[in-house]
Amino acid sequence: MDGRRGFLALLVAALLVGFLSVIFTLVWVLHYREGLGWDGKGPEFNWHPVLAVTGFIFIQGIAIIVYRLPWTWKCSKLLMKSIHAGLNFVAAILAIISLVAVFDFHNTLNIPNMYSLHSWIGLTAVILYVLQLLLGFFIFLLPWAPPSLRAFLMPIHVYSGLLIFGTVIATALMGVTEKLLFVLKKPGYDTFPPEGVFANTLGLLILVFGALVFWIVTRPQWKRPQEPASVRLQPNGGTPEGVEGPMAINFDNVDKSESELNNEAAARKRNVALDESGQRSTMAH
Amino acid sequence: MDGRRGFLALLVAALLVGFLSVIFTLVWVLHYREGLGWDGKGPEFNWHPVLAVTGFIFIQGIAIIVYRLPWTWKCSKLLMKSIHAGLNFVAAILAIISLVAVFDFHNTLNIPNMYSLHSWIGLTAVILYVLQLLLGFFIFLLPWAPPSLRAFLMPIHVYSGLLIFGTVIATALMGVTEKLLFVLKKPGYDTFPPEGVFANTLGLLILVFGALVFWIVTRPQWKRPQEPASVRLQPNGGTPEGVEGPMAINFDNVDKSESELNNEAAARKRNVALDESGQRSTMAH
Repeated sequence: MDGRRGFLALLVAALLVGFLSVIFTLVWVLHYREGLGWDGKGPEFNWHPVLAVTGFIFIQGIAIIVYRLPWTWKCSKLLMKSIHAGLNFVAAILAIISLVAVFDFHNTLNIPNMYSLHSWIGLTAVILYVLQLLLGFFIFLLPWAPPSLRAFLMPIHVYSGLLIFGTVIATALMGVTEKLLFVLKKPGYDTFPPEGVFANTLGLLILVFGALVFWIVTRPQWKRPQEPASVRLQPNGGTPEGVEGPMAINFDNVDKSESELNNEAAARKRNVALDESGQRSTMAH
Repeated sequence: MDGRRGFLALLVAALLVGFLSVIFTLVWVLHYREGLGWDGKGPEFNWHPVLAVTGFIFIQGIAIIVYRLPWTWKCSKLLMKSIHAGLNFVAAILAIISLVAVFDFHNTLNIPNMYSLHSWIGLTAVILYVLQLLLGFFIFLLPWAPPSLRAFLMPIHVYSGLLIFGTVIATALMGVTEKLLFVLKKPGYDTFPPEGVFANTLGLLILVFGALVFWIVTRPQWKRPQEPASVRLQPNGGTPEGVEGPMAINFDNVDKSESELNNEAAARKRNVALDESGQRSTMAH
């Protein structure tokens, strides 16, 4: 499962489970709840889970793994950064609209805002996500930040990105829990009504999506190969990749030619081959 | 913050926040709820959050970072594995007792079991945790597994360990949400009663504890140095560390002497020094 076929299988699984999560959320609000609208009532609230799952979970998850698609490794780092930033930007917009929907709903019905743990952690996650996006834009996308600053901030960027993603998933699971306890009264959540089982399944799908993204993004053998030094050392050429992945074993192919970098089979052999004692023996040189 | 002082600061912060989480859980059940007992009613249920937070979160978190304590690097790998396994074993026992408490409570009061998303994910996490413990015991602690099998399974062990830990934290946040919605009726959770604010704060503490453990365990510079090859190649000498940390940059010090390995300053200089272009230049050789 280490090769390109393994990657593709995991990617398809992640896309499928992520897409299913979005579909389940839509079915939940359209079939079991009041549908969608912008009237300050239930249908407006329903945009909250739909946009949160679509943007803040599915699109953010794709943004996290977009560097790892092997067929993008020939694209420039700047293009890939722009796609990464663009997807995260779209996700942030959808997350913010999802907040507007729930605040508007609360205000219309005189329900207090920000009393639940879900709301405390969810709002914190949105604020941190926007800060992360701004930091990423100014430090890593714009060409002005010195390489030493990028090198210092990249591990923090990777860590906080994954932390926010995991936190958003936890927040979604709290949201599902809250909503089911609010709306399932007669019959109650504890009688296993179809809506409860259905929304529980949505929660599992969201968790599995997160687990798949987390697996894909932490496999060293699926990391985008490092740019050649000649490209990398230009301010526009991207962040030094040696420090980009605190989650990944250093490729350390500074002195490799670009054509060799693009030879995926060679890269894989160079980086993941195990000798008889199970060591990553080829990393030493 | 990369050096030993940085590590110590983060470790103290994690221990403090983890300890505070346990204290907050105790205050919640002793001050705001019915206290502790084993009567099939509220006091028995209250063992559920107490044991889950103490064992399944705090002790599991410590078990995850125990290899990273620099003053243990002179201890044998076998001793550290035993401590890692022992802490996880204690955590599993406490997690299982916490399940017994809640099932017993439900059965006494004729409350259905296993209807909520919290219960679905929580039970799955306990089962996976026990499987992970058994896998770890037979493959990594007992001396019989061949190095190639350990090398293959170690990235999966690390990944699934962190995934389970994150899932347990998400489950705890759902549990806090559920409990507050069940018990805060007049005045309701949405009136910001002291118990609601207090338990929300507990939820934040649990999340911050997870974030600190996640940071500590993914810093390459705080990874336990690799054993010398002479020790490592014996079946009992431990797992090949080159493949142990898919989260960590390979130390790759196969040909270094043990005394040099124990020289922490040299190790740090060798592994985290950045040259002027921000590269991890010293990793290449």
